[in-house]
Amino acid sequence: MDEQQKNRPVDVPVRVRYADTDKMGIVYYGTYPIYFEIGRSEYMREKGFAYRNLEELGYHLVVVNLEAKYYNSATYDDLLVVRTGISDIKSRGLTFNYEIYREGTLVVSGKTKHICINSEKKTTSIPPHLLKILKDAETA
Amino acid sequence: MDEQQKNRPVDVPVRVRYADTDKMGIVYYGTYPIYFEIGRSEYMREKGFAYRNLEELGYHLVVVNLEAKYYNSATYDDLLVVRTGISDIKSRGLTFNYEIYREGTLVVSGKTKHICINSEKKTTSIPPHLLKILKDAETA
Amino acid sequence: MDEQQKNRPVDVPVRVRYADTDKMGIVYYGTYPIYFEIGRSEYMREKGFAYRNLEELGYHLVVVNLEAKYYNSATYDDLLVVRTGISDIKSRGLTFNYEIYREGTLVVSGKTKHICINSEKKTTSIPPHLLKILKDAETA
Amino acid sequence: MDEQQKNRPVDVPVRVRYADTDKMGIVYYGTYPIYFEIGRSEYMREKGFAYRNLEELGYHLVVVNLEAKYYNSATYDDLLVVRTGISDIKSRGLTFNYEIYREGTLVVSGKTKHICINSEKKTTSIPPHLLKILKDAETA
Repeated sequence: MDEQQKNRPVDVPVRVRYADTDKMGIVYYGTYPIYFEIGRSEYMREKGFAYRNLEELGYHLVVVNLEAKYYNSATYDDLLVVRTGISDIKSRGLTFNYEIYREGTLVVSGKTKHICINSEKKTTSIPPHLLKILKDAETA
Repeated sequence: MDEQQKNRPVDVPVRVRYADTDKMGIVYYGTYPIYFEIGRSEYMREKGFAYRNLEELGYHLVVVNLEAKYYNSATYDDLLVVRTGISDIKSRGLTFNYEIYREGTLVVSGKTKHICINSEKKTTSIPPHLLKILKDAETA
Repeated sequence: MDEQQKNRPVDVPVRVRYADTDKMGIVYYGTYPIYFEIGRSEYMREKGFAYRNLEELGYHLVVVNLEAKYYNSATYDDLLVVRTGISDIKSRGLTFNYEIYREGTLVVSGKTKHICINSEKKTTSIPPHLLKILKDAETA
Repeated sequence: MDEQQKNRPVDVPVRVRYADTDKMGIVYYGTYPIYFEIGRSEYMREKGFAYRNLEELGYHLVVVNLEAKYYNSATYDDLLVVRTGISDIKSRGLTFNYEIYREGTLVVSGKTKHICINSEKKTTSIPPHLLKILKDAETA
């Protein structure tokens, strides 16, 4: 992977499920944090360290802060794109940033701040191997 | 608790959340299994053995079969009643039966069949104390 | 599309979201009806008549019956395949059948029975164009 | 209702459902916006103007901003209290504030900013009757 590719945000398509909508006919506001989760999950996989593997090593990146801004609505069957990047990487935490688009139109943006905990649920350092991958992705 | 009370089904009120609805303006069909879960959770608590406690002992009643029939629709803010009973209690499993009402009208009925597993995810016998409670509830 | 292709079930991949799991560490039993919905949605799109378009014409295929059998569990990040076919097509309703696999292993099977309603929520005939597509898919 | 009562935040109990948890064994971070929704729904009912009624008049209070901070975790069967208040009431929008507690311990806090739209999805003024109720609740 060359330098240009490393810090690129990762785009993942998400098809809106019927279950994701509400009686206003649009995607429920509480569905977007789930789309964020898909975004960061695919971001990590793309960068070479699936979140699943991190958990298998006994670590979790728990969410301590969530923000979302809603600009437009989406509805059933829309094919959205979740664009995910990272920032503020520290030894014990990081922030994921999200932009969700429908055909080029920004629907929702947001961010989630995470800290790393171990299997005893204590705050700990992100494993060095992953930290390196994340920092490369951020700063390259 | 006298004999009459023991085998009574348990009613629990459930207020429909906005998140529970879909773009048809009604409760999403996949929401009802969640209401069933509330029903059986409160059923067990009422009978004196919270499901939470069962899990703390290392047991789970995993679902192996689900059925639901949809007669009417419900919508946001409706105050439903989930009526739960049990049947077919065996040493290693049982069936919960559900009827969900809105102001006396049957909205959905269903059942879930469960088997008991232990912390190694192997099929096992329901703990005797709970089995007695359940059998009393069924046959009394 | 030749005859062989018409009646083929449709496979759609579904990546398990963190949100789909529960505290047992596996996919929540109530998540599978959502996967079924993805299956039938992609089935109709594949056969040439997206469910979204059906709704835009004022029709809905509402669920009147749901069944699911749970054989194995799935967990976060698993890449499942939802295989969907149809049966029992009548002028006013039909049944979708589902099998969900993880690497060739059957996890859950199920079916949903639907009737067609119009914008006044009255039972009605499935639009002839769609009915033809569905019948071709079933009987070819 | 005397002055003291008018500006009081509204507490509503929420029992954590199994479906609300994830494979970490705790309530999924994306579940809390649903709890917020319960909070504001019950807030409005308590103050004398159910959100359901507002929608029946053709109005919606759509979410344009969401924030949540996670301090502690909650798990299945926990009986949480969602405390909801309002602030920043303007003619076309307002902010709901939330604090979610488990036995007196703050689990999550958050806020949602809303604007009022009409049935044509255009921004509009909050109906005067409701606006008065909300302002009384805020300033009393």
